[in-house]
Amino acid sequence: MAFKPKIPIALLLLSLLAICAGLALAMQDPELKQCKHQCRHQRQFDEQEKEQCQRSCEEYHREKKAREGTERRRSEEGSSREESYEEEEFGGEHEEQNPYVFEDEDFETRASTDEGRDQVLEKFTKRSKLLRGIENFRVAILEANPQTFISPAHFDAELVLFVAKGRSTITTVREEKRENFNVEQGDIMRIPAGTPVYLINRDENEKLYIVQILRPVSVPGHFEAFHGSGGEDPESFYRAFSWEVLEAALKTRRDQLEKLFGKQRQGIIIKASKEQIQSMSQHEETPPRIWPFGGDSTHPFNLFHKRPSQSNKFGRLYETDPNECKQLQDLDLMVSFANITKGSMAGPYYNSRATQISVVIEGEGYFEMACPHRSSSGSRGQREGSGSSGRRSRSGPSYQQSRGRLRRGTVFVAPAGHPVAVIASRNKNLQVLCFEVNAQGNVRFPLAGKNNIVNEFEREAKELAFSLPAREVEKIFRNQDQEFFFPGPSRQQEEGGRAFE
Amino acid sequence: MAFKPKIPIALLLLSLLAICAGLALAMQDPELKQCKHQCRHQRQFDEQEKEQCQRSCEEYHREKKAREGTERRRSEEGSSREESYEEEEFGGEHEEQNPYVFEDEDFETRASTDEGRDQVLEKFTKRSKLLRGIENFRVAILEANPQTFISPAHFDAELVLFVAKGRSTITTVREEKRENFNVEQGDIMRIPAGTPVYLINRDENEKLYIVQILRPVSVPGHFEAFHGSGGEDPESFYRAFSWEVLEAALKTRRDQLEKLFGKQRQGIIIKASKEQIQSMSQHEETPPRIWPFGGDSTHPFNLFHKRPSQSNKFGRLYETDPNECKQLQDLDLMVSFANITKGSMAGPYYNSRATQISVVIEGEGYFEMACPHRSSSGSRGQREGSGSSGRRSRSGPSYQQSRGRLRRGTVFVAPAGHPVAVIASRNKNLQVLCFEVNAQGNVRFPLAGKNNIVNEFEREAKELAFSLPAREVEKIFRNQDQEFFFPGPSRQQEEGGRAFE
Amino acid sequence: MAFKPKIPIALLLLSLLAICAGLALAMQDPELKQCKHQCRHQRQFDEQEKEQCQRSCEEYHREKKAREGTERRRSEEGSSREESYEEEEFGGEHEEQNPYVFEDEDFETRASTDEGRDQVLEKFTKRSKLLRGIENFRVAILEANPQTFISPAHFDAELVLFVAKGRSTITTVREEKRENFNVEQGDIMRIPAGTPVYLINRDENEKLYIVQILRPVSVPGHFEAFHGSGGEDPESFYRAFSWEVLEAALKTRRDQLEKLFGKQRQGIIIKASKEQIQSMSQHEETPPRIWPFGGDSTHPFNLFHKRPSQSNKFGRLYETDPNECKQLQDLDLMVSFANITKGSMAGPYYNSRATQISVVIEGEGYFEMACPHRSSSGSRGQREGSGSSGRRSRSGPSYQQSRGRLRRGTVFVAPAGHPVAVIASRNKNLQVLCFEVNAQGNVRFPLAGKNNIVNEFEREAKELAFSLPAREVEKIFRNQDQEFFFPGPSRQQEEGGRAFE
Repeated sequence: MAFKPKIPIALLLLSLLAICAGLALAMQDPELKQCKHQCRHQRQFDEQEKEQCQRSCEEYHREKKAREGTERRRSEEGSSREESYEEEEFGGEHEEQNPYVFEDEDFETRASTDEGRDQVLEKFTKRSKLLRGIENFRVAILEANPQTFISPAHFDAELVLFVAKGRSTITTVREEKRENFNVEQGDIMRIPAGTPVYLINRDENEKLYIVQILRPVSVPGHFEAFHGSGGEDPESFYRAFSWEVLEAALKTRRDQLEKLFGKQRQGIIIKASKEQIQSMSQHEETPPRIWPFGGDSTHPFNLFHKRPSQSNKFGRLYETDPNECKQLQDLDLMVSFANITKGSMAGPYYNSRATQISVVIEGEGYFEMACPHRSSSGSRGQREGSGSSGRRSRSGPSYQQSRGRLRRGTVFVAPAGHPVAVIASRNKNLQVLCFEVNAQGNVRFPLAGKNNIVNEFEREAKELAFSLPAREVEKIFRNQDQEFFFPGPSRQQEEGGRAFE
Repeated sequence: MAFKPKIPIALLLLSLLAICAGLALAMQDPELKQCKHQCRHQRQFDEQEKEQCQRSCEEYHREKKAREGTERRRSEEGSSREESYEEEEFGGEHEEQNPYVFEDEDFETRASTDEGRDQVLEKFTKRSKLLRGIENFRVAILEANPQTFISPAHFDAELVLFVAKGRSTITTVREEKRENFNVEQGDIMRIPAGTPVYLINRDENEKLYIVQILRPVSVPGHFEAFHGSGGEDPESFYRAFSWEVLEAALKTRRDQLEKLFGKQRQGIIIKASKEQIQSMSQHEETPPRIWPFGGDSTHPFNLFHKRPSQSNKFGRLYETDPNECKQLQDLDLMVSFANITKGSMAGPYYNSRATQISVVIEGEGYFEMACPHRSSSGSRGQREGSGSSGRRSRSGPSYQQSRGRLRRGTVFVAPAGHPVAVIASRNKNLQVLCFEVNAQGNVRFPLAGKNNIVNEFEREAKELAFSLPAREVEKIFRNQDQEFFFPGPSRQQEEGGRAFE
Repeated sequence: MAFKPKIPIALLLLSLLAICAGLALAMQDPELKQCKHQCRHQRQFDEQEKEQCQRSCEEYHREKKAREGTERRRSEEGSSREESYEEEEFGGEHEEQNPYVFEDEDFETRASTDEGRDQVLEKFTKRSKLLRGIENFRVAILEANPQTFISPAHFDAELVLFVAKGRSTITTVREEKRENFNVEQGDIMRIPAGTPVYLINRDENEKLYIVQILRPVSVPGHFEAFHGSGGEDPESFYRAFSWEVLEAALKTRRDQLEKLFGKQRQGIIIKASKEQIQSMSQHEETPPRIWPFGGDSTHPFNLFHKRPSQSNKFGRLYETDPNECKQLQDLDLMVSFANITKGSMAGPYYNSRATQISVVIEGEGYFEMACPHRSSSGSRGQREGSGSSGRRSRSGPSYQQSRGRLRRGTVFVAPAGHPVAVIASRNKNLQVLCFEVNAQGNVRFPLAGKNNIVNEFEREAKELAFSLPAREVEKIFRNQDQEFFFPGPSRQQEEGGRAFE
């Protein structure tokens, strides 16, 4: 209290807010809060089910508290590290939500018709300043009914598509040349910024489900769609010009232009006839795709046609190779796909440089992550100059658990350096698509299983670091002989899963 | 003590202003406002002419409203997209001006003497957060009388010069070597950051007019000039050192140093004698310039000595080629120059990646641009989750026209992806210098004339996109057979031009 | 109409604030203020000594004012340039401290035990927005007692170490391989982001003193340490996972895990036994280091084994060569080390592109720097449009001196383009380690001595720039025939040094 009196007048209001936030945090654990929040936003639940769900959260929370009582007590000590970080960076702002998990309600519907919709995830920095490093990436998900047409547009953003489900034909125009690409599940395709593009769902029955990552080229963190072909809906950008200019540019009388740019009213995603679909999906005149492809080819390539980089009975990991995949190189991006067998888990591990943006494609489960930014520590003591012993205070950061439930459409972020584990429910495989931003030179360091980093330390380092005989340390870190994918928590399998399953 | 309580007051005021701004926006159309604003700032107008001019604005505005009544009604629907964008990005801040046009009053005079002046355009981000992508570029214009000397300086910015008018000798010092370059209209020259440079107007009669683009290397968006040689005006930075240090460094007694650094009082741009000019313009000992030049040559090159990349009787476009022009490559910059024949127009077109900063060198006219950021849309409806039909709401962005009058010295910005057209008055050719920022891999997509993108679409795509038979679409988009430059709006030519001409 | 009057109100308030700030500035010179500030923060001083010290500041200040009276009068003219800059950039915020000097109290102790501590300099942008260009670099200093172990960790930052004192063995784990490096004074080593690293002070008597520069890869300007090996202190990040997940991942029962992650309580820097030290310092199985080394080797290299790039009896300068030092290339970083002989000085000079972050390793002295950002000018006059003569106002920027005392641990920043000189006390050599950020293509331009830039100007340019006969200018700029290092201020040597010595 007596610590900050220098700024008080200006920050009086802010302090009040901070105190309120503090109280709120003390009264309600963020995990509990999020659990309840998720209950309230289950669309398929009715009011009664929502209440029941929230009660389960509380019950789970009470149990967990009791179970972990002793070791989690540290979070009550001193000032929170989050606070000091926030003060340092942003003048006391508080994050109330888990900054790393995004649900349905965090998407904005940019376009929607009876035949489908395009949803864009909110800006990462809107959620938390901790995500500034990926500010200039946006995630979007396109869904379209069978036999539909998605209207031509260009974007002021670099665009990478992943076909999560269904079959599409994607058409682009570059350098006065049209190219058509038939794509299917697992295909990745880069659309350079500004390129006119349109596509169809060429399947008669299956929905098309495309996950997109966009990197804006003009306004950092923000992009727009530009529809030239259209009328009232989608509105054509030609209509923003005066009739005089349009008449001169297109050498066409106004009445004809009014007709041309006034007819379309069905929106961006519309039904196409069987004949139209057939015709458009047979235009692929480009040579067959060969793996690996070179140069700056814009051809899509299929992630699932590669050998998995990790594979055992607990899961499979498919990854783009930066050398093969020139299209993604200048975006400093890698794409990977993990299929975690039901009841199994991936990690813990961490990425050395990359921040991983993951989108759940199918299945259920949860993740756990160790976060120094959000945790409490006794760091205040050291600030006042120490080194002189007496009562000892903690000498490094403290880590708090970030945890989130995963289901289809959930997006979660694992920043560089942060240890993370992903656990599949025991009912269904968990399929996760990952975009790795800042990918160049990235290394994945395993924290368990074969080749985990502790195993590599010298005997003396193990002794000194853990304050235990080296052989005891070694024994534990050599127990697990699988790599990357492991059998999941046994408790979960035996008891039916408390942990968000 | 009395220093800090200001913040609450400031916030109070800001809140009031925000409310006022909201009201004001409702009451007055931005375009009308800008038109009147321009009237009030015509230096050559007397008070009566200014009033007349403002009345014309109102008249024009009334007419336009009536004319466009039906199709522009949409702007009244729902919440504005600008607002939602602004809220998303910047917490509700309002743009009051057209963010893309800059006039005389937006320049700051950094240096001024009887012989000339150096004017710097305000930071782009001061005008609008939408210009964050070009934050780290600044535009400046130097004017100097015949037979003048512009004092030596270095800058904490990369500097690219374009000689818009006149003849100069530019001298730089690099690696213990002086180099002199005789430059003339159309010459482009890169001055690396920190390089000492001085120049002369070597012409006996003509003014020198140099347009500069600067990319700061130290403080993003901000640069400074450092004058070593000088005295009181320009002040020499040597004077900021203590006499003790200067005495030791220059091994010279203080009285002599006081004389050395105390004499100059005439400022940065000063008259030179005929003999001095003659001597300095004959020092060019460097080999003659050959086109194309290679390596990291710092030699200037002339844009007008190239073959134009577009040329017909309606205009000519000269462009630097990134491969030939190594000097600009690491700045990710291209320079182009459009000479639009009187009564003609360029575009509409858009740049795929580059943001185009244009400076009007000569002539008059106007531009029109389609802006999704500033326009209104019914997007609110979709936010609340749709896809379930019933009453349909618009499925994509809406575009607003950004329009601005062009005359000598006007700067306007066309961000990546934004469709834009530039129209010359019928009295005089319109000459526009363009800096394209973020130039690598940029493609210009034509929206009218030969090779326009709609022509490339498949028949089915045209049908589906416009909801019209393909042949009707094709007929219109094939009417115009010119490329890039077209005859201007006929109405303008017949009626004497309502549109800002 | 109701639209514009807000701006005058806003300006009114700003003007009032500006006036207040002006008064405050007039009342207390920043240099005096800093001098006194330094007095108050001398830890070794008692209250009486602090007061005495502050009185000396005032005395020195009075004398200096009198001495420099006439030529410094300009600072009273008109509005300050700092103001206009600050308004332009940051809405009127005022810098109260010298933004370029950092002392003990500007470090935060991140980790501290009886055996040593790790201190991190505050974010540069916390001090001043002027340092935004180096926002994403952080400086840290590690001190460890003889025969100690620094616990394993990885960082979400690229890390460059310089061994300022002592002998260490540094161990890293990369690609399932451990590497040990014996390093000593002068060694520079790059640790890629995310790499697990631990080290020892292998000397029996000498303290280890390592200066680090870090470039965060995840959150700009912010990094965290991740300790996996540890227990309660340092806290292991494994503890942030649930026991269920840890049991499954490490295939080990909870009671054993609780023991493993509960034992360590001694902190990050701990005593090691003689045997442990001996064993760990003999593990270096890597081939001997050869100079120059190629590829992307991660081997350390020694700056002092190179030929100095500048050397005379007044000082020596050692520099990394970007071509030899591949490790630093992608960080756009250079490292240099200046050993300035007692009573001598380096510069004045400036860097063309690089911003120089200097850390004083040993000795005492001071620096002087010319700063356009912080100085006053008559620029207000020109804003209202001039060029029309009458009463003349200054035509360019004005420069203010930034000056700071240097002693062990002081950090100071010289931004690109800023002329700077560093002066050693006459008692002891001054040793300064410099990190040059934005190093690619950087050129150091000398402002005195051999090859100074003024010497390179043409005769006519000298005449015109200084308004003096060319031979008078030449005479002075040729007096000093040494290069880079010069004998220091004679006054300082004769009188015992007023100037902060």
